[in-house]
Amino acid sequence: MFRFELICSDGKARRGRLITPHGIIDTPVFMPVGTQGTVKAMIHKLLEDINVQIILGNTYHLYLRPGPEVIKLAGGLHSFTGWHKPILTDSGGFQVFSLSKGRTKDNRSGVRVFEEGVEFKDHLSGSLHFFTPEKVIELQEILGSDFIMPLDECVEYPTTYAYAESALLRTLRWLDRSIKHKRREDQALFGIVQGSTFEDLRILSATATVERDLFGYAIGGLSVGEPKDIMYDITQVVCEYLPWNKPRYLMGVGMPEDIIECVARGIDMFDCVAPTRMARTGTLFTHSGKLNITNEAFKKDFSPIDEECSCYTCSNFTRAYLRHLYKSEEISAYILGTIHNLSFYQKLMQDIRIAIEEGRFESFRRSWMERYSSKLC
Amino acid sequence: MFRFELICSDGKARRGRLITPHGIIDTPVFMPVGTQGTVKAMIHKLLEDINVQIILGNTYHLYLRPGPEVIKLAGGLHSFTGWHKPILTDSGGFQVFSLSKGRTKDNRSGVRVFEEGVEFKDHLSGSLHFFTPEKVIELQEILGSDFIMPLDECVEYPTTYAYAESALLRTLRWLDRSIKHKRREDQALFGIVQGSTFEDLRILSATATVERDLFGYAIGGLSVGEPKDIMYDITQVVCEYLPWNKPRYLMGVGMPEDIIECVARGIDMFDCVAPTRMARTGTLFTHSGKLNITNEAFKKDFSPIDEECSCYTCSNFTRAYLRHLYKSEEISAYILGTIHNLSFYQKLMQDIRIAIEEGRFESFRRSWMERYSSKLC
Repeated sequence: MFRFELICSDGKARRGRLITPHGIIDTPVFMPVGTQGTVKAMIHKLLEDINVQIILGNTYHLYLRPGPEVIKLAGGLHSFTGWHKPILTDSGGFQVFSLSKGRTKDNRSGVRVFEEGVEFKDHLSGSLHFFTPEKVIELQEILGSDFIMPLDECVEYPTTYAYAESALLRTLRWLDRSIKHKRREDQALFGIVQGSTFEDLRILSATATVERDLFGYAIGGLSVGEPKDIMYDITQVVCEYLPWNKPRYLMGVGMPEDIIECVARGIDMFDCVAPTRMARTGTLFTHSGKLNITNEAFKKDFSPIDEECSCYTCSNFTRAYLRHLYKSEEISAYILGTIHNLSFYQKLMQDIRIAIEEGRFESFRRSWMERYSSKLC
Repeated sequence: MFRFELICSDGKARRGRLITPHGIIDTPVFMPVGTQGTVKAMIHKLLEDINVQIILGNTYHLYLRPGPEVIKLAGGLHSFTGWHKPILTDSGGFQVFSLSKGRTKDNRSGVRVFEEGVEFKDHLSGSLHFFTPEKVIELQEILGSDFIMPLDECVEYPTTYAYAESALLRTLRWLDRSIKHKRREDQALFGIVQGSTFEDLRILSATATVERDLFGYAIGGLSVGEPKDIMYDITQVVCEYLPWNKPRYLMGVGMPEDIIECVARGIDMFDCVAPTRMARTGTLFTHSGKLNITNEAFKKDFSPIDEECSCYTCSNFTRAYLRHLYKSEEISAYILGTIHNLSFYQKLMQDIRIAIEEGRFESFRRSWMERYSSKLC
């Protein structure tokens, strides 16, 4: 029912294919984030137009709204949302640890970690909830997503060695409980490697997680404020300890340059809110870097966002028109910006896959990085 | 270049076709409102998917933002917006008189009417502007819209006979100046019949406007707070004084029941913000009436908005999912709601056209009105 096929590789970069009950996914893949059962400012047919093969859902958000009861009655998340291609859901762990902070009156963290699970106050009503590894599996079994994640303890950056160690060990114990509790066979569970920025802890976590023999392996706790070279280094080290024949997912990453750098280190799957979130504030991607379309400079600029882009937005609309829509706070601005940013990411991933297939990933990476500036213009 | 073909009629209801430089429009037609050069919460390809043949633009809004200079540089509104089908623009008169109210510090109207034109403070910055009939023609010649409107003096409801009379006479004098000033031959000018709710003034206005021999005739100043039966009666009276072979446009109307009632009285063209604006607040149309999708009642309702609707939204999504999107304030809610409401209007107009063609408009009208409740459920 689930299979990962490695088609070819080029250095550490890999070109593969994920087979799931809801369809096939070409890797390396970027997965747009559909937090609440919809990719923001998009509708499914616009995602299909740009060949999106998988989207993410957030267990935490869907648990709060519309709640598991509604999704269960609907027959799962695919049926509820009308998105019939693959879905990956996270465990909610990241949101529990990030969104619940400071919900208490005395401004201390609203999160309390116990061996049994994690207590938190939600970011909507401030109500108290308790997630256990078992509950998170049950929630995702109701969701029926193709790829599911076990509850993990996410630590902030920077953190102490001792705390990072205790969190990764707890994450391992929670993983074992997750594996034991999982019932559905039409869902594939990933293990999550933690250990903050400490190489030996990352190796310990990777080794122990791989021992559990899961469908795939995720790297958590990166892109949380650490310098980029540390993120790249940790990704490289962890990949060395992951089995060659299993998919590798770098959670919450990233910007186009991060994706290229981490494909070079052996990552197959990415997700990030950047292209969709930035689209809603007018930051749009081009082959030479990001631009903020609301700038005065674009008022009379009748060229497309990116001359090399063939997306619906770039094929039909000018920077001047898009700037006008953004300045006028029209919803169409967010739709057209999101179409472009996601198309840009789709094209990047396609170019990466072709470069790997053709054994020229290193030269692609070099020339791409030379043209692209990570600064905003 | 412009032609109105009357294909057939059924009682006073008419089935026609408008031929313009940017395409053909089947009448009776409902024209979605694209105030700022975009239909709210839509992108052009979604409008094309539901066969929208013409959209409106608002001269007042486009004059303020992005301003005539930008649109002129772009080569007109079609080129600027990338919408290459027909466009109708209003004169800005209605917005000048409605949006500028109370902009002054002493809370008096920000609008001052002179014989030369109208002075107003805009609703964005409060700056002072002056529109003359000539300026409004020039602005629309820059826009390059297919159908253009002359500046008119819009009166509130209720108003006095004397004021309504003086406003309609000024509107006629402004119309003559507009006709004289118009240069472009690839645009068709309508005349606007005013006269508030006074039948004899409406007849006077209609007769005098028709004497100017314009491409088409619009009825302004209705649907501004007067009872529905008065709106229907005035529409009926005015239509009796309009030539049979010219298109008739009822400005700013209306709800589905208004459209049916006014087609029955001889109207060919309609525009209204209702379907798009209501979609953004969760009010969706069905064949039995309107519903507010955010109601608790729809939380576990896995049926489509309207069983009889075959739009993208109804074909793919349930009330429960849409309610979730609206409650979560997702942009996709507004997109999907707008697709549905506009599709509902498109289907209504198509059903009207077919009923007229088949000589059964009266029975269609009766059975439609029997099922449809104008109340919100």
